[in-house]
Amino acid sequence: MKMIIVLKPNSTTEEIDHILERIQELGLKPHLSRGERRTIIGVIGDENKLQAQPLQAIPGVEQVLPILKPFKLAGREMHPADSVVTVGKVRIGGGSLAMIAGPCAVESAAVLDEIAGHVKAAGANILRGGAFKPRTSPYSFQGLGEEGLRILRDTGARHGMPVVTEVMDPRQVPLVERYADMFQIGARNMQNFDLLKEVGQVRKPVLLKRGMSATVKDLLMSAEYILSEGNLQVVLCERGVRSFEDSTRNMLDLSAVPNVKVQSHLPIIVDPSHATGRPDLIPAMARAAVAAGADGVHVEVHNCPEKALSDGPQALLPDQYTALMQDLRRLADVMGKSV
Amino acid sequence: MKMIIVLKPNSTTEEIDHILERIQELGLKPHLSRGERRTIIGVIGDENKLQAQPLQAIPGVEQVLPILKPFKLAGREMHPADSVVTVGKVRIGGGSLAMIAGPCAVESAAVLDEIAGHVKAAGANILRGGAFKPRTSPYSFQGLGEEGLRILRDTGARHGMPVVTEVMDPRQVPLVERYADMFQIGARNMQNFDLLKEVGQVRKPVLLKRGMSATVKDLLMSAEYILSEGNLQVVLCERGVRSFEDSTRNMLDLSAVPNVKVQSHLPIIVDPSHATGRPDLIPAMARAAVAAGADGVHVEVHNCPEKALSDGPQALLPDQYTALMQDLRRLADVMGKSV
Amino acid sequence: MKMIIVLKPNSTTEEIDHILERIQELGLKPHLSRGERRTIIGVIGDENKLQAQPLQAIPGVEQVLPILKPFKLAGREMHPADSVVTVGKVRIGGGSLAMIAGPCAVESAAVLDEIAGHVKAAGANILRGGAFKPRTSPYSFQGLGEEGLRILRDTGARHGMPVVTEVMDPRQVPLVERYADMFQIGARNMQNFDLLKEVGQVRKPVLLKRGMSATVKDLLMSAEYILSEGNLQVVLCERGVRSFEDSTRNMLDLSAVPNVKVQSHLPIIVDPSHATGRPDLIPAMARAAVAAGADGVHVEVHNCPEKALSDGPQALLPDQYTALMQDLRRLADVMGKSV
Amino acid sequence: MKMIIVLKPNSTTEEIDHILERIQELGLKPHLSRGERRTIIGVIGDENKLQAQPLQAIPGVEQVLPILKPFKLAGREMHPADSVVTVGKVRIGGGSLAMIAGPCAVESAAVLDEIAGHVKAAGANILRGGAFKPRTSPYSFQGLGEEGLRILRDTGARHGMPVVTEVMDPRQVPLVERYADMFQIGARNMQNFDLLKEVGQVRKPVLLKRGMSATVKDLLMSAEYILSEGNLQVVLCERGVRSFEDSTRNMLDLSAVPNVKVQSHLPIIVDPSHATGRPDLIPAMARAAVAAGADGVHVEVHNCPEKALSDGPQALLPDQYTALMQDLRRLADVMGKSV
Repeated sequence: MKMIIVLKPNSTTEEIDHILERIQELGLKPHLSRGERRTIIGVIGDENKLQAQPLQAIPGVEQVLPILKPFKLAGREMHPADSVVTVGKVRIGGGSLAMIAGPCAVESAAVLDEIAGHVKAAGANILRGGAFKPRTSPYSFQGLGEEGLRILRDTGARHGMPVVTEVMDPRQVPLVERYADMFQIGARNMQNFDLLKEVGQVRKPVLLKRGMSATVKDLLMSAEYILSEGNLQVVLCERGVRSFEDSTRNMLDLSAVPNVKVQSHLPIIVDPSHATGRPDLIPAMARAAVAAGADGVHVEVHNCPEKALSDGPQALLPDQYTALMQDLRRLADVMGKSV
Repeated sequence: MKMIIVLKPNSTTEEIDHILERIQELGLKPHLSRGERRTIIGVIGDENKLQAQPLQAIPGVEQVLPILKPFKLAGREMHPADSVVTVGKVRIGGGSLAMIAGPCAVESAAVLDEIAGHVKAAGANILRGGAFKPRTSPYSFQGLGEEGLRILRDTGARHGMPVVTEVMDPRQVPLVERYADMFQIGARNMQNFDLLKEVGQVRKPVLLKRGMSATVKDLLMSAEYILSEGNLQVVLCERGVRSFEDSTRNMLDLSAVPNVKVQSHLPIIVDPSHATGRPDLIPAMARAAVAAGADGVHVEVHNCPEKALSDGPQALLPDQYTALMQDLRRLADVMGKSV
Repeated sequence: MKMIIVLKPNSTTEEIDHILERIQELGLKPHLSRGERRTIIGVIGDENKLQAQPLQAIPGVEQVLPILKPFKLAGREMHPADSVVTVGKVRIGGGSLAMIAGPCAVESAAVLDEIAGHVKAAGANILRGGAFKPRTSPYSFQGLGEEGLRILRDTGARHGMPVVTEVMDPRQVPLVERYADMFQIGARNMQNFDLLKEVGQVRKPVLLKRGMSATVKDLLMSAEYILSEGNLQVVLCERGVRSFEDSTRNMLDLSAVPNVKVQSHLPIIVDPSHATGRPDLIPAMARAAVAAGADGVHVEVHNCPEKALSDGPQALLPDQYTALMQDLRRLADVMGKSV
Repeated sequence: MKMIIVLKPNSTTEEIDHILERIQELGLKPHLSRGERRTIIGVIGDENKLQAQPLQAIPGVEQVLPILKPFKLAGREMHPADSVVTVGKVRIGGGSLAMIAGPCAVESAAVLDEIAGHVKAAGANILRGGAFKPRTSPYSFQGLGEEGLRILRDTGARHGMPVVTEVMDPRQVPLVERYADMFQIGARNMQNFDLLKEVGQVRKPVLLKRGMSATVKDLLMSAEYILSEGNLQVVLCERGVRSFEDSTRNMLDLSAVPNVKVQSHLPIIVDPSHATGRPDLIPAMARAAVAAGADGVHVEVHNCPEKALSDGPQALLPDQYTALMQDLRRLADVMGKSV
């Protein structure tokens, strides 16, 4: 049974027959259950057909209630064990934590090299940095493009860290694929379905960030787009959602971590930097993420936030990151996980 | 003066000097004002540089307060008169209302022809229909593609209506340009900046829908992306935002209409169909939109919602649309506008 | 049928028997429907018992889906015709519009008299003014108390207008009852259930404002509290909800107007002053409210907003109110309503 | 300097003089700073007067920017050290964690006794249970009243645990004071200012829960109401806020924990039960709360959730609570805290 159709009270026999006919026309199988005052019809059949049909617009129908989860590749039902995604030699999920760190944007080889040295020493295992930057204003710094990708790859190689970077446009996918070990899909593009399909056709891991007003179900449906194209290496990322609270940049929804884990086998990490936008809150939220069961933490680090070309004010200083990593290792230990 | 930097109480002379130096290094001009307990620095200069600088990360700084609006092409300051955007022979803005109607998706030539006849007779002046559909699930109907575009163009021509249709991928822009009179950028792509730049380079009007959790300022910044590429024909669309209210699909923010008009010269229309997702609320919200000063209304109409392949339940029936248009004409009259 | 219980796939016979037993223990009647893979149980019986029971906590239960609406006195099912509430000689609902106007707080007899003269001349029919003010800060002006009530009553009488004022504390109800023609329950107290019960026991009309994050259903449930105590004279008020949009004080949800009307017979008015907090947006939103079908509009007016002791910046000037009322009369005419 | 007034470009000398006069009339001290195109006025003086004044309504004013924080008793500025609140012999804050547990409502002496025995054995140090229940529907179970208070007090005494229970009405304060060791102000009453003042006049600790759409600043302002009446024993509680996410009851905003700690000396605990409404998410969120630096965790526990008269589905079973407490102790240890 995939859906339940609740009919209006006193629906007529004609209405009921019409509904049964429509369901059968669609190649679906109705299952009638007449109550004293209400009649209910269960519908069995191909989920795709069901989702494409506006059953609630049929006269006599009061409510259509879906039963099965709409994601099958991302869901735990068909895949009960936790997935582990491998980026370079780093395992994410199944007890292994990804510690992703780096500046918001790649600015220069020298700056990135210095930051990479710091975060590697502190225990980070994946280096991040943006070469294509989605900026609210067309007049803000938009990233170094291919030059940034090259710097990122070379710096990662020098410090022995695989690299992750954002891709914003389906046309950039082949270029980014040449340089990066993992694609990042940013929050603003979580429902850029053509981009999701494009990275779905590549065989490299994807870090999919939750949209600013996406439900957990929406996030899993977007993962389903990538998975359904054949790329099974998807890591989700909670990075805060829009809310009325005006003292933080976004509201970090840490309950998304266990919520995803109940429904899906995919790893999920947390980005407290974009979520809070405030260095004074990032360490507490990173610790909370590990205790909530996240498979990793994504933190922006910059050696001189005041000169950063993008999002400087939300970055941790290298020393703050080093102190944070010490806390995270102790918490990982309590949680039975390893960095 | 473009920004005000408020220093922390008791900031030292060294800190103040350091801040002044940083500002001058950036080619900006500081304007110091020492108070009894607080010191304030005004900053004058190139807005782009200012926005790229994380001034609040400099030690000693408590708050950075922006003063001027960050959009210059979309803003009223430099362009006080209302813009009028012309689609085919239809004028939008400056007292002329766009009445956009049609099905969610183009399904077949026969269905679209019938709907187009209805809405044209009722008073609609632009025909809509999706050929590329952004669907939450990869398993839902994704649209007819180029075949849908061809049907839309031919149907519009037959009924004397220009046509608008969604473009989702920058690679589709040349194709959609061949068939459509106006591009639609959907809510999910409002911050798909590469797509915005691409339609910014075309010389056809763009209908830009507000993102599901975009502020009015974000919407105007996205319009700025299109305008800054040289395409000045942008019409905004309020279509509801995400909220905690669970009895409607989204929450229609009609205050966005006068709010945009205070700040910008661009026309703005309202889509009560996606906003409410409920045919029983659409007519009231369409009337309210006109009374709020909107430059048009965008309504989904289908002759058989229960067979619609996408979003059927939120469509009005042709007769409902005809009745609504009678109300809207009377309200337009009170507002001093014409359809 | 009042509820549907969807069982987990592969639920055992023991689990099913246990659920059936529990339902029967509660004096309710189960209605079993076994599907191929899923079993569903409909439950019939006393709604109150059903709502008090955590059926979804029983092992084997996947989802509990309610069917009937939980409000019976506020709902249209048992009371299909629109209610009309009478305040003094003013009718609200059933085609008659309440035009409530006045300052946020009663400040002095002289100021209120001047404002009352203005708004009466402009066409307002109910005078408002706060004597007890709910202020976010304990250090802000909290209202004149009984002295304010006396001024309000006398000023209303002098200008021939009934008066409405806020009551915040159940202990104030008898006092406010002596002076006011209508109680106002503010947004912050929409779920102050003891206060709702207290005004439910009085026989004077109540203006119930929607809470800052209340759904339409929550609002109707709060009205149900008042109605269930025997006071049937309830007028609802939409006044904006909290959202991420930071350029207005709240987000006005005008769709609440038709949404309430579909479900309930109670009148509903709109307060664009608190909703937007911006005089430049109030007139457009007041017009939109009337076009959306509201039974009245509640606007703050002050002859000198810059000297107002509370919420001055969001008040209209008397001349702005006069101009607005001219627009509203023309729109009321189109809507077939009278002021 | 308490506020900055930014004038509109090209404001006239008359406007500026008028503004300066108004400020001086209020007994405040203006501080003029003319820029090339903009003029700015700093205002110094009594904060209360400033907050009561709608400076932004004066002609010529573009923006009014507050500088100092509006809470003085709750704020860290005047009280840098963490406060410790003592309930019975239990210390909350300053490194000591409150572990509050019990059923949503007190149902009977037998049930409460059994639950209290379980949670005490598991490590809880404060017993909770509602005698007055704020329920959305007037037809739901409303609590046992004084009988419930008596049961709660006696059960707490028998198990050696102080007790906390909700007070909803200012008239109930003396009654609740006789039985409880700590008052709870529920989320729906966070801005019931008369109730806050009433518990402010008592000398017993207060657990103040964050409102469903209250900002962190609103929460601290409500604490300020209690503190300003002389009751300094206030513990805050984050319990989730309303959001668009529909798979959890509320959205837990754990960043409120460090956010409060930056601004205030008051202890803050977390309630993952009401926040998520889902037993499968509660343990992860309780762990995250401790790692985020919370001063305690508030969890609903019931020995038979399916028979609970209120909120059963969100309660943990006693065994689940015992397992959770083992995790929390290990995390407290990492955080340098003790239960």
